Amino acid sequence: MFKIFYEDIDVGQTDAFGAYAVTKEEVIDFASKYDPQPFHLDEEFAKHSVFGALCASGWHTSAMMMRMMVDHMMEQGFAGLGSPGIDGIDWKKPVFPGDTLTIESEVTAKRESQSRPNIGLVKSTYHVKNQHGDVVMIMRGNVMVAKRG
Amino acid sequence: MFKIFYEDIDVGQTDAFGAYAVTKEEVIDFASKYDPQPFHLDEEFAKHSVFGALCASGWHTSAMMMRMMVDHMMEQGFAGLGSPGIDGIDWKKPVFPGDTLTIESEVTAKRESQSRPNIGLVKSTYHVKNQHGDVVMIMRGNVMVAKRG
Repeated sequence: MFKIFYEDIDVGQTDAFGAYAVTKEEVIDFASKYDPQPFHLDEEFAKHSVFGALCASGWHTSAMMMRMMVDHMMEQGFAGLGSPGIDGIDWKKPVFPGDTLTIESEVTAKRESQSRPNIGLVKSTYHVKNQHGDVVMIMRGNVMVAKRG
Repeated sequence: MFKIFYEDIDVGQTDAFGAYAVTKEEVIDFASKYDPQPFHLDEEFAKHSVFGALCASGWHTSAMMMRMMVDHMMEQGFAGLGSPGIDGIDWKKPVFPGDTLTIESEVTAKRESQSRPNIGLVKSTYHVKNQHGDVVMIMRGNVMVAKRG
C-alpha cells in the first residue's frame, strides 16, 4: 500500500493539492463543538468584530488543511506514521464560508531518527490559500516517514 | 462582559482548568471528517500501529484543548480577540478514548501592539495532561487581548 518512503523525499521538492469548500454549516458546527467564540458562531456579532464577517476557527482551518493532507498522502501511498508536533502556525487572514482552500507545500528538511532506525523525520512548510490566491494560513510541520524495507 | 484585560495579565502567572472526557465516538467522528488515518479510525489497525491503540488525531486534541480554553476565557470574562498563530505544538503522547484532559498554563511574555494601540499580544504555554498526570501535548500560543477602556 505504501509507495513513497523516506528515501524518496527530497529537500526542496514542492507540491500543490486539495480543494476544500468551506461551508457556513461546517464553520458553525466546528465552532459550536471546539471554539465557541461569537465571531465563529454569530454572523451579526462577527460583522462588528476584527474579522468583519463570520469566519472559521483557526483550529478548523487547521483541521481542513489536515483533511487535504491526509487525502493527498493516501492517494500518493505516502508512508506517513504520524507527527510529533508542529514548529509553528500563522493564521494570516480569516477563512470565510464560501471560500475554497488549497495547499502548496515544500519540503524544508529531512533527517533519520536517532532512536528508531526504520524511520525518518521530514519537515515541510504548507501554505493554505483561498480562491483569491491569498495565503490564509502557514504551517511548519513534521511527519515521521517509514524507510523502505 | 469583559473583566480581564491586557493590563491585568502578568508574565509568569499560572492557571489550571478544564476537564474534557475523550470518547471513542468523538475520536472517530473527528478523524472521519478531518484526519482519516487508520490509527484514528480502526481499533484493530491501531493495535498494531506505533500508538498501540485507537487514539485521537493531534488536531482533535488541539481542538479539545481549545474548547477548554474558550470555556475558561468566557467564565473569566477574558478580553481575548483571537490568535495570530502558534509558536509550536508538541504531541508528546497519544490521547485515548476514556482519557480526561486538563490544562496547566503559564504566561510567558506580553507586549503592546505596534500597529493597534488598543490591543496587546500575550504568549502562553499550555500543558495538556491526561488523568494519569502525563503531558500529552504542549502548545506555545499567542492571543490578542483588548486593553482597558
